[in-house]
Amino acid sequence: MFSKILIANRGEIALRILRACREMGIRTVAVHSTADESAMHVRLADEAVCIGPPSARESYLNVAAILSAATITGAEAIHPGYGFLSENADFAETVEAHGLAFIGPTAEHIRTMGDKITAKTTMQALGVPLVPGSDGELACLEEAREVAAKVGYPVLIKAAAGGGGRGMKVAHSEDELAEAWSVARTEALAAFGNDAVYLEKYLDRPRHIELQIMGDMYGNVVHFGERDCSLQRRHQKLLEEAGSPVLSSEERDAIGATATAALSKMGYRNAGTLEFLYQDGQFSFIEMNTRLQVEHPVTEMVCDIDLVREQIRIASGEKLGYSQSDITFSGHAIECRINAEDPDSFIPSPGTITVFHPPGGPGVRMDSAIYAGYRVPPFYDSMIAKLIVHAPTREAAIARMQRALDEIVVEGVKTVIPLHRRILADPEFRRGDYTIHWLEQFTNRKH
Amino acid sequence: MFSKILIANRGEIALRILRACREMGIRTVAVHSTADESAMHVRLADEAVCIGPPSARESYLNVAAILSAATITGAEAIHPGYGFLSENADFAETVEAHGLAFIGPTAEHIRTMGDKITAKTTMQALGVPLVPGSDGELACLEEAREVAAKVGYPVLIKAAAGGGGRGMKVAHSEDELAEAWSVARTEALAAFGNDAVYLEKYLDRPRHIELQIMGDMYGNVVHFGERDCSLQRRHQKLLEEAGSPVLSSEERDAIGATATAALSKMGYRNAGTLEFLYQDGQFSFIEMNTRLQVEHPVTEMVCDIDLVREQIRIASGEKLGYSQSDITFSGHAIECRINAEDPDSFIPSPGTITVFHPPGGPGVRMDSAIYAGYRVPPFYDSMIAKLIVHAPTREAAIARMQRALDEIVVEGVKTVIPLHRRILADPEFRRGDYTIHWLEQFTNRKH
Repeated sequence: MFSKILIANRGEIALRILRACREMGIRTVAVHSTADESAMHVRLADEAVCIGPPSARESYLNVAAILSAATITGAEAIHPGYGFLSENADFAETVEAHGLAFIGPTAEHIRTMGDKITAKTTMQALGVPLVPGSDGELACLEEAREVAAKVGYPVLIKAAAGGGGRGMKVAHSEDELAEAWSVARTEALAAFGNDAVYLEKYLDRPRHIELQIMGDMYGNVVHFGERDCSLQRRHQKLLEEAGSPVLSSEERDAIGATATAALSKMGYRNAGTLEFLYQDGQFSFIEMNTRLQVEHPVTEMVCDIDLVREQIRIASGEKLGYSQSDITFSGHAIECRINAEDPDSFIPSPGTITVFHPPGGPGVRMDSAIYAGYRVPPFYDSMIAKLIVHAPTREAAIARMQRALDEIVVEGVKTVIPLHRRILADPEFRRGDYTIHWLEQFTNRKH
Repeated sequence: MFSKILIANRGEIALRILRACREMGIRTVAVHSTADESAMHVRLADEAVCIGPPSARESYLNVAAILSAATITGAEAIHPGYGFLSENADFAETVEAHGLAFIGPTAEHIRTMGDKITAKTTMQALGVPLVPGSDGELACLEEAREVAAKVGYPVLIKAAAGGGGRGMKVAHSEDELAEAWSVARTEALAAFGNDAVYLEKYLDRPRHIELQIMGDMYGNVVHFGERDCSLQRRHQKLLEEAGSPVLSSEERDAIGATATAALSKMGYRNAGTLEFLYQDGQFSFIEMNTRLQVEHPVTEMVCDIDLVREQIRIASGEKLGYSQSDITFSGHAIECRINAEDPDSFIPSPGTITVFHPPGGPGVRMDSAIYAGYRVPPFYDSMIAKLIVHAPTREAAIARMQRALDEIVVEGVKTVIPLHRRILADPEFRRGDYTIHWLEQFTNRKH
């Protein structure tokens, strides 16, 4: 096992990793920009190294400075957290070239999954379902009709060379198909000089459901079930649940078996997340994140596992030591991301936290790096804390989150706490009746 | 189900009960003395009633004021918490005479268990083991010899009319028995005018192990396993564990079956705790607490149950709804009581909390009622918070508690946090090698 780990991150995730290290008896090295001198991860780490000015490019993304810090302090491994360098294949490669362990997958797997098209073709070849549709370009309208009949309406005719919504048309029924076909081809030709089009099922009300994976260096891969992260605003997740309110355990087992088989064939190691769109009982792979996710605590709470500890164990060469049948799911967990933002405009609200009172009691977990007197810097992500609850049922978890949101006090900066309170009280949310479009519609409603 | 509950307590336990009520959709009435006007339970309750001046006798023990508060606010039930009126049979009776539900056992059972001698004879009659010894007075030295041989040395010869250690002698072997017999009888005659003596096994290194019981109004009784509360100073518990480091699951099942059978025969309802001395594989009942215990969270964490919710459900007439075989034990939990006391002298340290930073992250629970700026009043118990951790193994729970104790910051008052850090680092504690005498010896050691 490592005796010292450098944590190449900041904020709550740096503290999260530090906590796991401390419980494992591993010494920690924090790195920080000059803006984070008094941050909790700096205060609590065994050693801390300043790696540059506030700008992330010159500090948290500064590979040379981070590697120097690791060398100087004698760290044996680097945990990248999420964001920053966590999905930078070159960084992973450089870390290993310096004889240090990168706590994550191989550089090759990071690279493969970092390219969204390669990721999809790789996963498809390994048996993971994509959005149903044509097998590449369509030869003629008749073929489009056949494929559409197979995948079911509505369908999308998309320019093969396209992007940005141009050359993309929806057909809600066969009646609309011929026109969509012709308009899409015309637009495609005009925009890209190429009228080749393909067809995909149009997912009009999908959920974002993702699967937590963990593999060791010996081909053993397990999954820790799914998270429903459909509550997003501009592709930013705001509230996550484990499990999904709409997934049956049979569906979970089935997609889990498909995903673990695929990643085992790949030889994937360490933590990873397969993101899917889910609609009408069908999973469509969209991308894979080759790192720990922000929302990992909801999985930890339903599976009673410490995912960061598992990452570290695996990176040090240990075997998983358990199999899929040892992993059980108990109760329901919800995470609310607490961002320092105006809850209506979502404009970041940096500043000094004057009062911070986290909620407590049974089933409540707080992952944060803030304290009264802490100055939220304007340079980084606005997420300052994660409030997570666990309870025997979804209904009980919602009640627990509501009472925790009643208790929490953060003053000095604006936060999205009032928005979370509104979401938790909403009948549609409470019924689990939402898609990836729900939150944007909800925040546009008058209240 | 009740729609409104009055919480006849203060501090962290009032907040604990309030949290359960809120999650169940039950409105809450806080009562408070003038010293507790700005307490958390007062701030967070739906309604609050001042019931008197700081002196507990005139406020938290003021039955008339509490009943008036319940009547005025239309509360349907009273939760007494622990301490104060929680084991006052007359209070329970008065509450019910006023048509309110008392969230606890019947007044009769509180009364029976409140008298330690009646409690012991009642439990013995129901098959619960006491400290092994003679069946009442001994007729002669020969009988003492026979009983001593049966229960094993060391034994205690005790004056039947005695108390305060007079007329009490230890015999470590048969060689010492005759002298102990004769000295005890002589002292007993001199002190109490009665030379009748009896014999008990002398427990020189017992542990305090207690069993959490829950019964409904229909004769269903289950147990939620044991807590090891051997770490005590002047009969005040300081750190508790679930499960006990020395108990096997077979031993737990056996004492659990004995205890639940006894309480089912009694018709015991609501939460209760049977306290035992435990040594050499033998349990000896010492007393029963007919209420929620301070240390209930460790049980909640290993059993994944909300005991306060169960108390409320049962008091409203609901059935348990599960049986013993549904209750499982997962991992290990430790609670550290955070008292506002000097960690060496144990002298209370009331005052204003200037900084409070509770620890967070996985497996950490904080039950407290303090906040930065809160003034710890000098009138009540010095316990201001409970820090509880849960982890898969005892070793992991110790590591987690150590890192949580490294994170916690309480400034403005002295606390026992430094003592907890020393305990957690001690090799004997870490081996689980301690008795009820260990903590006093430990705190007397130089450090």
